[in-house]
Amino acid sequence: MLSKNQIKFINRLGQKKFRFKDGCFVVEGIKTINELLQSHFELYQLYTTESFNIDAKTENLISDSDLKRISFLKTPNTALAVFKIPKPKPIGFENLILALDDVRDPGNLGTIIRLCDWFGVKDLVCSKQTVDCYNPKVLQATMGSISRVNINYVDLDLFLEQAQLPVFGAFMNGENVYKTVLPKKGILVMGNEANGISKTIAERVTARVAIPRFGDLQATESLNVATATAVLLSEFKRNV
Amino acid sequence: MLSKNQIKFINRLGQKKFRFKDGCFVVEGIKTINELLQSHFELYQLYTTESFNIDAKTENLISDSDLKRISFLKTPNTALAVFKIPKPKPIGFENLILALDDVRDPGNLGTIIRLCDWFGVKDLVCSKQTVDCYNPKVLQATMGSISRVNINYVDLDLFLEQAQLPVFGAFMNGENVYKTVLPKKGILVMGNEANGISKTIAERVTARVAIPRFGDLQATESLNVATATAVLLSEFKRNV
Repeated sequence: MLSKNQIKFINRLGQKKFRFKDGCFVVEGIKTINELLQSHFELYQLYTTESFNIDAKTENLISDSDLKRISFLKTPNTALAVFKIPKPKPIGFENLILALDDVRDPGNLGTIIRLCDWFGVKDLVCSKQTVDCYNPKVLQATMGSISRVNINYVDLDLFLEQAQLPVFGAFMNGENVYKTVLPKKGILVMGNEANGISKTIAERVTARVAIPRFGDLQATESLNVATATAVLLSEFKRNV
Repeated sequence: MLSKNQIKFINRLGQKKFRFKDGCFVVEGIKTINELLQSHFELYQLYTTESFNIDAKTENLISDSDLKRISFLKTPNTALAVFKIPKPKPIGFENLILALDDVRDPGNLGTIIRLCDWFGVKDLVCSKQTVDCYNPKVLQATMGSISRVNINYVDLDLFLEQAQLPVFGAFMNGENVYKTVLPKKGILVMGNEANGISKTIAERVTARVAIPRFGDLQATESLNVATATAVLLSEFKRNV
């Protein structure tokens, strides 16, 4: 049986300000929960209709109807976990770093985190206006890869100023990325869905790159930020 | 003022069987509607709160509340159009063809159509079980690019048997795509989100390709089908 306080505590974790205040976030689905249990993420509470056989103090066996009351999904899974938000690790400047300038769509951020994991990008740096990576919709799209990518929210302008690394930025009118020599270490900046890279951040970019367009030149407008990130990370990694 | 019959006609176009029966589909949003108006797609009806100044017979000026009654969106735009489903054009076998083996997620198909447009892939061939490209959620993700990609739903097994082209398939255990010589003409097959390429279709594949994984080898599971398509289309096109 769930107490009113438990329900209230979990429901409010749907909002960024309470996640920040409580230092916790919610994950649903056995597969993702299991992946996080095997990572450095610290479990706080587990609510499940089928036992995971873990520490009895944190595991709460509940009914399907109780799970519905705390789930953020239309069709709840069989388990919901509350994890503590980990303290980000220091950024490693020896490899490629991906930076996001105000990416707003949770599905895009989730897909980008999964791409970082695949392409071995250990550090993802996000501007303060980028959607929160502990948003339930982001977590759903990451498929557990959030535990393998170190995510820092920073003042992106200041970060780029201090980083002392080449800064590559994705622009529609940039140099053909297929013909650009890409270094092993550096920063790749991807911009907002509607507006691209902001003017302030653009001034920090030392090399503008673009994915050539092969289709109808007048019509096709742009690639989605997640698919553009896929192509650019592939380009950075393919010759390493 | 909308008649009951008009509302019923549009609402039922949310279902594939009625789109097929009526030969029509719905598009929302001025930008996408304008793109389709400039294409070979034939307008059947336009419902709008602000005049487009087109043929008075097909343009219906309606109120915001009427638009809400026919819209498929939570937050309706200012216009909704019904277009006729065009007859697919013959497939061009002189270029790269993308084939989908049971891609089910509308967002993925929409993103893939947009990628075809960007990378100049004129022909997209879908298995019968692939989500319908005139599904409203697919159309929302295509951003108008659907008018520039020729989409055929076929018996994929039969199509591949008869195509007389090299068939590349995306497999987790395929050859490193960065080291594979990719021809200008051929077919690239992408599989279902959960199961990949089916056994029957796999038998038609003449070359299995994979995007190398640079992250933690034990953990990261797979790339999303849309981001994997982005990387593979980029590989096919980058050296052309």
